[in-house]
Amino acid sequence: MNATDNTQDTLRRIAATIEGRKGQDAAKSYVASLFSKGQNSILKKLGEECAETIVAAKDGDRAGLIHETADLWFHSMVMLAHANIRIDEVIAELARREGVSGHDEKAARPAS
Amino acid sequence: MNATDNTQDTLRRIAATIEGRKGQDAAKSYVASLFSKGQNSILKKLGEECAETIVAAKDGDRAGLIHETADLWFHSMVMLAHANIRIDEVIAELARREGVSGHDEKAARPAS
Amino acid sequence: MNATDNTQDTLRRIAATIEGRKGQDAAKSYVASLFSKGQNSILKKLGEECAETIVAAKDGDRAGLIHETADLWFHSMVMLAHANIRIDEVIAELARREGVSGHDEKAARPAS
Amino acid sequence: MNATDNTQDTLRRIAATIEGRKGQDAAKSYVASLFSKGQNSILKKLGEECAETIVAAKDGDRAGLIHETADLWFHSMVMLAHANIRIDEVIAELARREGVSGHDEKAARPAS
Repeated sequence: MNATDNTQDTLRRIAATIEGRKGQDAAKSYVASLFSKGQNSILKKLGEECAETIVAAKDGDRAGLIHETADLWFHSMVMLAHANIRIDEVIAELARREGVSGHDEKAARPAS
Repeated sequence: MNATDNTQDTLRRIAATIEGRKGQDAAKSYVASLFSKGQNSILKKLGEECAETIVAAKDGDRAGLIHETADLWFHSMVMLAHANIRIDEVIAELARREGVSGHDEKAARPAS
Repeated sequence: MNATDNTQDTLRRIAATIEGRKGQDAAKSYVASLFSKGQNSILKKLGEECAETIVAAKDGDRAGLIHETADLWFHSMVMLAHANIRIDEVIAELARREGVSGHDEKAARPAS
Repeated sequence: MNATDNTQDTLRRIAATIEGRKGQDAAKSYVASLFSKGQNSILKKLGEECAETIVAAKDGDRAGLIHETADLWFHSMVMLAHANIRIDEVIAELARREGVSGHDEKAARPAS
């Protein structure tokens, strides 16, 4: 990543690469193989990466935590592509909550 | 605001806001309350948001999936801030895997 | 109390108690409130308890790990009751895999 | 499982089998290979099985949900064995909460 890049540009490039894997040969691309296996396999990977992220955080393994968080985000992006959701829609949702400060912050978050 | 901040960059702005909540009054900020409760509470939220993301995906709930993915990413960012990891380090790890195409793609991913 | 109940059998007693909470006043029973909120709320709790179990294991917190595993099993049982599955069906599946020893063990497990 | 068995007896037999795999040849036993890989690998499997359980529940896949719950409980038991916790300690914790009825039920649960 170039220092002058913004993070969204990098994520958009990765999302475009993921999108381009749809329908490609599952034997030649990990992402194409995930699309080919379908939604349940993608979601299983998401749960696995979440557990690995928690483990790396508890281990205080800094490099591992960067790796696992990248894996968690990457598989989230595969999941979004599978659902035909653009990452800009997620970033817009995060931005929508911005500027909401102090004790209004929690109220602005969804009720999950 | 820090050196990497960019007003065009939503994720860096949010990361800077999260960082700024460290040590603030837990009664006035949701993020400050998470920092105050500590790492285990942050990781518990990560697991919860991951489960909610999977549920929204299975429901085919498009708006819900955008919401829950935003929640998952947001709590990942709180976890990174707690570990003093900048989101640029995660984005750089994602970018590092970029350009690795075809059947080398999986080999380039960490062994997780 | 149902036909499979056995006063010597804690898990069946608890399953019968959970079953008996269906349709009861959500204000008076935690389990009734989970049934009232529905499947998604039960599954969200499952993900949350799984994350807490992982955290307790990593902390080497023996008492906490007993607590969290009990929580994980308890919410699994609420999930089974919601799906009208008896715990005996899960125990029978576990027993089916018993006696399968040595290197056949993994092959006998489902393909998950 | 014999109809007259109680569920604890079956779980105790399985726990004893798991315990007996400690130190055995990882090439010949799935459980021995999990012990050999260590705690992080066991916890990663727990997170993976939890995600698969949630997916099977959302699919309304009855046989799959029995399978995945058995997998979740089985890997919980491997985790307990790794931590030298007997399943009777978890069952005792579940029993301790029994008999606590009505609106005291939630208060009796741990603060997780």
